[in-house]
Amino acid sequence: MTFNNVVVVGGGTLGSQIAFMSAFHGKNTTIWGRSDGSLDRAKARVARWEEAVKKDIGATDQQVKDAEAHLHYTTDLKAALKGADLVVEALSEDPDVKNDFYKKFSDLADPDTVIVTNTSTLLPSEFADATGRPEKYLGYHFANSIWKNNTAEIMSQSKTSKDLPKEMEQFSREIGMVPILVNKEQPGYLLNSLLVPFLSDALVLWNNGVSDPETIDRAWMIGTGAPLGPFAIMDSIGMKTMYDITKMSTNPEVKKASEKFKTMIDQGKIGRESGKGFYTYPDPDFKKPEFLK
Amino acid sequence: MTFNNVVVVGGGTLGSQIAFMSAFHGKNTTIWGRSDGSLDRAKARVARWEEAVKKDIGATDQQVKDAEAHLHYTTDLKAALKGADLVVEALSEDPDVKNDFYKKFSDLADPDTVIVTNTSTLLPSEFADATGRPEKYLGYHFANSIWKNNTAEIMSQSKTSKDLPKEMEQFSREIGMVPILVNKEQPGYLLNSLLVPFLSDALVLWNNGVSDPETIDRAWMIGTGAPLGPFAIMDSIGMKTMYDITKMSTNPEVKKASEKFKTMIDQGKIGRESGKGFYTYPDPDFKKPEFLK
Repeated sequence: MTFNNVVVVGGGTLGSQIAFMSAFHGKNTTIWGRSDGSLDRAKARVARWEEAVKKDIGATDQQVKDAEAHLHYTTDLKAALKGADLVVEALSEDPDVKNDFYKKFSDLADPDTVIVTNTSTLLPSEFADATGRPEKYLGYHFANSIWKNNTAEIMSQSKTSKDLPKEMEQFSREIGMVPILVNKEQPGYLLNSLLVPFLSDALVLWNNGVSDPETIDRAWMIGTGAPLGPFAIMDSIGMKTMYDITKMSTNPEVKKASEKFKTMIDQGKIGRESGKGFYTYPDPDFKKPEFLK
Repeated sequence: MTFNNVVVVGGGTLGSQIAFMSAFHGKNTTIWGRSDGSLDRAKARVARWEEAVKKDIGATDQQVKDAEAHLHYTTDLKAALKGADLVVEALSEDPDVKNDFYKKFSDLADPDTVIVTNTSTLLPSEFADATGRPEKYLGYHFANSIWKNNTAEIMSQSKTSKDLPKEMEQFSREIGMVPILVNKEQPGYLLNSLLVPFLSDALVLWNNGVSDPETIDRAWMIGTGAPLGPFAIMDSIGMKTMYDITKMSTNPEVKKASEKFKTMIDQGKIGRESGKGFYTYPDPDFKKPEFLK
């Protein structure tokens, strides 16, 4: 089955990016928002993604215009769901908010409509039954700036049908993503299951005074040939996200590192986007040849 | 202080590489071995490193000849230690073997002679007092094929003097290494403190059926821009070493993975060097552009 009519529920950072890339690739796409205010904020975000795709992937004005023609906005859920093939739930990470939506969705949507959740931190199985179609439901996780960091992790829960991951794989390719199949529920999907503990281990080494961020990055870069060490990766994630991740950690040594991120944020060292984090951009030391010598 | 007279104790894989690179960079270097047989094996290894430096870093015949002129072999410990500035202990990872050597060293060596241990898995603090000069003793850890993977991790223990890491930093540069300072004792130094848990996390995802090696590597490569995912890194480490690492793991989920490595070894899939591991070499799939699409 090909998904042509796509509804994205919630126009936040990721929701608006998913909707925009879906429209950009010719899908008839609707962003549903709770209020006119939330739709206005979604539109402002989409305007930023329009500039970003021109800059980052060389999109033309015409392509952006075509995307706009495919992208619709509504606060009317019933109208949005009419004829929808695929609904991408991208609401806030609050179980009550999600359950409340799924109940409405279950009542209003056609039984054939597929629904996927963009949750990062909750597990799809928590909500599968609330959707009224657990076999047509799975987790669908993106990186940020999805037009260039174009992974789409497709994570089944125990009741997901065998066919749905394949259909989502096809849809992902159609909207310019590289599908990454996650065969069973795994908190953090694949990338964050590897990345979060990796960054945490580096933070613990730093926190315990074993070494400093630059030396740790150098060891990783020389040892594995990677273009970025863990602290350079944190710069690209941004200190606000790192603060949120570490603050929630169950490992007290990692949790302690959240204080360091708070200090960095207070000092305006917010990460690559702000020009300063562990390194100074746009010419960070780790890109200089002498860094590895 | 500049270390010009270097003794490497033990001519195994790493010992012979360290001695060879020391001699290659003009240091007067001696390999001490327990018997003529062990010295013969060390010489055979050095002959391999001579070919390797020609191939890998474009060393000339003359450079190799000069290295040979700087490299000596002896079974006479007293003679070896006479006038030694720096002793690199590269014996097997057996505390009794190391303690036995340190006792002899302590009796025979000049009090000014510095000693470092190439241990990977034991902690230098266990042996510091046995050397008779704990302030002149630290951990000194290399990767394999040190002429190209040229990190030298310099790890102080609590009694190491403040100056010794700096002197070892200078020595490391003099023998072509990139020094990586580890300010206090850390099992695994820096690189393995990050790498071993990272590889273990990837193995657990695979073992639990969450995804397959290629998909996990793809997620990591796209998500972080790295040239190798965890399973490609395992191929370059080799299945025998991976078997040893996982077999000793205290995490039962990681330990279970050792069975998979045993099967791979039995099938002749020993890793990159054998042409087959998780990928087939010299043109592994992960190097093909479509792998990331």
